[in-house]
Amino acid sequence: MTSAAPDGPVLVVGAGLIGASVGMALGRAGVKTYLSDVDATAAHVAASRGAGSDDPPPDDLGLVVVATPPDLLGAEIGRALAAYPDAIVTDVGSVKVRPLADLIAAGVDPSRYVGGHPMAGSERSGPLASAPDLFDGRAWAVVLHDAARPEAVAAVEWLATTCGAVATLMSAGEHDLAVARISHLPHLVAALAAGQLSAAPPEHLALSGQGLRDVTRIAAGDPVLWRQIVSANAAPLTELLLSVRDGIDELVASLGDGDQERVYAVLAAGVAGTEAIPGKHGGPSIELVEVTVAIPDEPGALARLFADSGDAGVNIEDVRIDHDPARAYGLVELDVSAEAADRLVEALGARGWSAHR
Amino acid sequence: MTSAAPDGPVLVVGAGLIGASVGMALGRAGVKTYLSDVDATAAHVAASRGAGSDDPPPDDLGLVVVATPPDLLGAEIGRALAAYPDAIVTDVGSVKVRPLADLIAAGVDPSRYVGGHPMAGSERSGPLASAPDLFDGRAWAVVLHDAARPEAVAAVEWLATTCGAVATLMSAGEHDLAVARISHLPHLVAALAAGQLSAAPPEHLALSGQGLRDVTRIAAGDPVLWRQIVSANAAPLTELLLSVRDGIDELVASLGDGDQERVYAVLAAGVAGTEAIPGKHGGPSIELVEVTVAIPDEPGALARLFADSGDAGVNIEDVRIDHDPARAYGLVELDVSAEAADRLVEALGARGWSAHR
Repeated sequence: MTSAAPDGPVLVVGAGLIGASVGMALGRAGVKTYLSDVDATAAHVAASRGAGSDDPPPDDLGLVVVATPPDLLGAEIGRALAAYPDAIVTDVGSVKVRPLADLIAAGVDPSRYVGGHPMAGSERSGPLASAPDLFDGRAWAVVLHDAARPEAVAAVEWLATTCGAVATLMSAGEHDLAVARISHLPHLVAALAAGQLSAAPPEHLALSGQGLRDVTRIAAGDPVLWRQIVSANAAPLTELLLSVRDGIDELVASLGDGDQERVYAVLAAGVAGTEAIPGKHGGPSIELVEVTVAIPDEPGALARLFADSGDAGVNIEDVRIDHDPARAYGLVELDVSAEAADRLVEALGARGWSAHR
Repeated sequence: MTSAAPDGPVLVVGAGLIGASVGMALGRAGVKTYLSDVDATAAHVAASRGAGSDDPPPDDLGLVVVATPPDLLGAEIGRALAAYPDAIVTDVGSVKVRPLADLIAAGVDPSRYVGGHPMAGSERSGPLASAPDLFDGRAWAVVLHDAARPEAVAAVEWLATTCGAVATLMSAGEHDLAVARISHLPHLVAALAAGQLSAAPPEHLALSGQGLRDVTRIAAGDPVLWRQIVSANAAPLTELLLSVRDGIDELVASLGDGDQERVYAVLAAGVAGTEAIPGKHGGPSIELVEVTVAIPDEPGALARLFADSGDAGVNIEDVRIDHDPARAYGLVELDVSAEAADRLVEALGARGWSAHR
């Protein structure tokens, strides 16, 4: 079965950032949506932003979307299944094995439940931060289990695509291992690397470049939310952490005995891992080349740079702005395809930019 | 003593990316520069690109810049000190304690030597990749020691600023600890996190977002160069790796016994570390807010977006382009100051963009 709309209106339980954004995205698509929250004010704020009606929902709901904090998910999903015995139920939590196990341990029939996880967020939280396009173009994991009814899977796929996302089907175990690898472990190693910086004097940190900023950026995320997320995904995350610890032991031993080949093996495995990350639009990775351009640090300079790049017919795959520690200009690093790099450098040079590969 | 030009022309030893770029930057500033390499062709290529003359250098050199691979630095610096007994000698290597120790162990008087380390590079190598503006706006560590003559320090500061960089003075021990923290350790943890990805099936990696790409980007660097760099900085790097291993042990124990407070402590230390990284232009970090905009994936779209942002008078501090796994548009994340974010969202919305905080 492919994506199919549920047989009745949608109720979103929880009017935080994700719940209210789901309501707004469904509203954008013309879907009749209700919204509830233990905090009636939050529901009212979300409703006023177009996330649905905060009136009491009817009995003939087709789909309930549970969007409450990670620690409460299993119980909330069970409550929704009991309250609406004809509705499909899904959730938007970051971890999937534990809520399903909690349901089954509580003796609940999970056949009308299929989990979901939109890969989107914001540094802000609450209904005021919601947006109807939060999920546009993002992946949305649709999490299967053996007892799931086909129409429940189809309804959650419909939810993902109706919200503008790309549905990706997998089991709860696969999902939790996947997000441990691509999100939770990277978050923890970024936090560990960043944690070494507080002890450094400012003159050491003055040498910082874009590489350090990139590695540590996600470590700035809300530690209250992240401790819930990683704690709920302890098993796969522990395996990965132990594997990273083995790598550190290997590095320490290699640095101690001067065996560069073993250091090389760790570095080469890292290179292979970066090559495994899919490229733009899910296609194979393409070879990107970095072109660096010096620009004045003022409104309009980036616009001129991108206009000139566009005139050269070069598609920019990624951009980073580096920081000049002392001057009134910045350095912009443009990632472009290898075949376009020389053309871009030449075109920018001809228009007075200082650009190099 | 502040920055002061050396008393005679400059010789750059080693015509790779950094050496040839130093030659080109000095040429841009009108400084008489010579260039040599064990590979005469490399020197000739660099000379043809404006990196200096590959004729035999005169005896009255004022400054010799050693730009050879990390493993050979101490011996090359000693050779330069012996060959030009009146010249100041510096280098551009990534690690500073070992070459100085090698010099002293060999019985060389190091008073005319002051180390240097420009914080710049490229994914390419060799003289064909060189550029006169490679160092513009970058930090350049000027590495002092007790026996260094003041005029040697002044000449290396002059070299850094003449090449367009910002000189930052520190001792060799400080430098190596600083780069271990801000560059070598982040590189290794990025490699360890990326190394976990190769085992993941493609459908797991399809959930990848910009966070993973940021954390792992630098792990794509040349493993042959990086094994030399980290091996030459074994002592401070080992201390940091052991500290990270302690953090991993703490996380594993906390995940095992469900103690969220200990997980929180590691995460909070990471947040504090990200806040310690200096902001743009060496000033204090400013609070940045992320604005996400959906754009068509075609040349010119970024130009229009930045033009519209510029018209709104908003200065964009950083940019990331996220990747849509299935559609012909991308998501652009703009980092702007907190006070400008709402203005930007409104201005972009008024011009037809789908933008949200």
